[in-house]
Amino acid sequence: MSNYVYGRNSFFEALANKRIIRAYVLNDKDVKGKGIEYTICDRKMLDKLSHSGNHQGFVAEVKEYKMARVEDMLKDKEGLIVILDGLEDVHNLGAIIRTCECAGVDGVIYKSHNSVKVNDTVAKVACGALEYVKVGEVTNLVNTIKYLKKQGYWIVGSDGSGENMYTDIDYHMNTVLVIGSEGKGMSRLVKEECDYIVRLPMLGKVTSLNASVAAGILIYNVLAKRSE
Amino acid sequence: MSNYVYGRNSFFEALANKRIIRAYVLNDKDVKGKGIEYTICDRKMLDKLSHSGNHQGFVAEVKEYKMARVEDMLKDKEGLIVILDGLEDVHNLGAIIRTCECAGVDGVIYKSHNSVKVNDTVAKVACGALEYVKVGEVTNLVNTIKYLKKQGYWIVGSDGSGENMYTDIDYHMNTVLVIGSEGKGMSRLVKEECDYIVRLPMLGKVTSLNASVAAGILIYNVLAKRSE
Repeated sequence: MSNYVYGRNSFFEALANKRIIRAYVLNDKDVKGKGIEYTICDRKMLDKLSHSGNHQGFVAEVKEYKMARVEDMLKDKEGLIVILDGLEDVHNLGAIIRTCECAGVDGVIYKSHNSVKVNDTVAKVACGALEYVKVGEVTNLVNTIKYLKKQGYWIVGSDGSGENMYTDIDYHMNTVLVIGSEGKGMSRLVKEECDYIVRLPMLGKVTSLNASVAAGILIYNVLAKRSE
Repeated sequence: MSNYVYGRNSFFEALANKRIIRAYVLNDKDVKGKGIEYTICDRKMLDKLSHSGNHQGFVAEVKEYKMARVEDMLKDKEGLIVILDGLEDVHNLGAIIRTCECAGVDGVIYKSHNSVKVNDTVAKVACGALEYVKVGEVTNLVNTIKYLKKQGYWIVGSDGSGENMYTDIDYHMNTVLVIGSEGKGMSRLVKEECDYIVRLPMLGKVTSLNASVAAGILIYNVLAKRSE
């Protein structure tokens, strides 16, 4: 099984991580002597391989992204795992994975049905971060949350109806942040498993942030609270 | 001068704000009796008017977005103005305007040359927030920053090289947050005007956040610090 990534950042991250099966490039100066198979193409061919994406002259067939196991995301203390409950936009998934990598998050988990999945657009939006963050697909988020609770994790969901302000929680514990979908937020069953439901202040008339922006604020707040 | 917006959210925000010159919709049930001129169209026409955007059946010709004056963004205390120094991506501009509206920011300023501007894509990404946030275009950011300093504002720029962690500043003062461009950060002249340069912790191997995510973290941190 294989997959394609495109764009300068994604290409060179894949190269650095030895995931490239074959490179498709405009000229050989960037790939020659790197020990990878490559094909010199014209722009038209690269447009086709990248489905008219912004390839910047670099496309690669890569080994399929290896999903991580939840067990491998666990920490003894101050762990931080992000669960995405029904995210629908690949750009948001990519941006969230990028943020998680920058923030040193231990893993990102989403459910394998009815939500976006890691693909080449996600890899591109994530600007290479996909190579370094553990991303796991699970079939049942509620079971995964129950498992994480048994491992000593506290579950913090975000929702406009939350009782607690997001800044009021003690994040020194092992923490799972649950981010809901763009339109509908968290599903009922996931919400019921949360130890805390937190909200972000909404001072305007438009009452929701972009999902990847909200995730960024929540994730970086955990870091800020832990460094206080 | 006129402009087009599309998509359900942007359309109804424009309607609520009496900015619609003429509506273009699939059927009249949403616009009949609202006191606006409208044209019933087929999908093909709406695709054309929205340049194949995700119009959801709603396109409107609207009065050109009225730019705000910097003078009208000033507050006596705990003011918060966001300056965008050379942002290049319309999606980032839209997402930042949306965040600013949610956070009750007093105004967003960008320079009129060499950066993205408010347009229908920005309006769409901002999910209606453009109607409520003061957005100003200026020809010279450095002059605007000097003016804001004279009005008692402190200038906080964000850059990976920053001496201060972003959480270490006292944001109870009147504050201007300066967000640099996606690739190059702040320009040198703008950087020199900053009272503080702050950085976000970067714990991974990919060393930059998406510009709208970084802006969200910085903006919401000001709110968090002010509510402590």
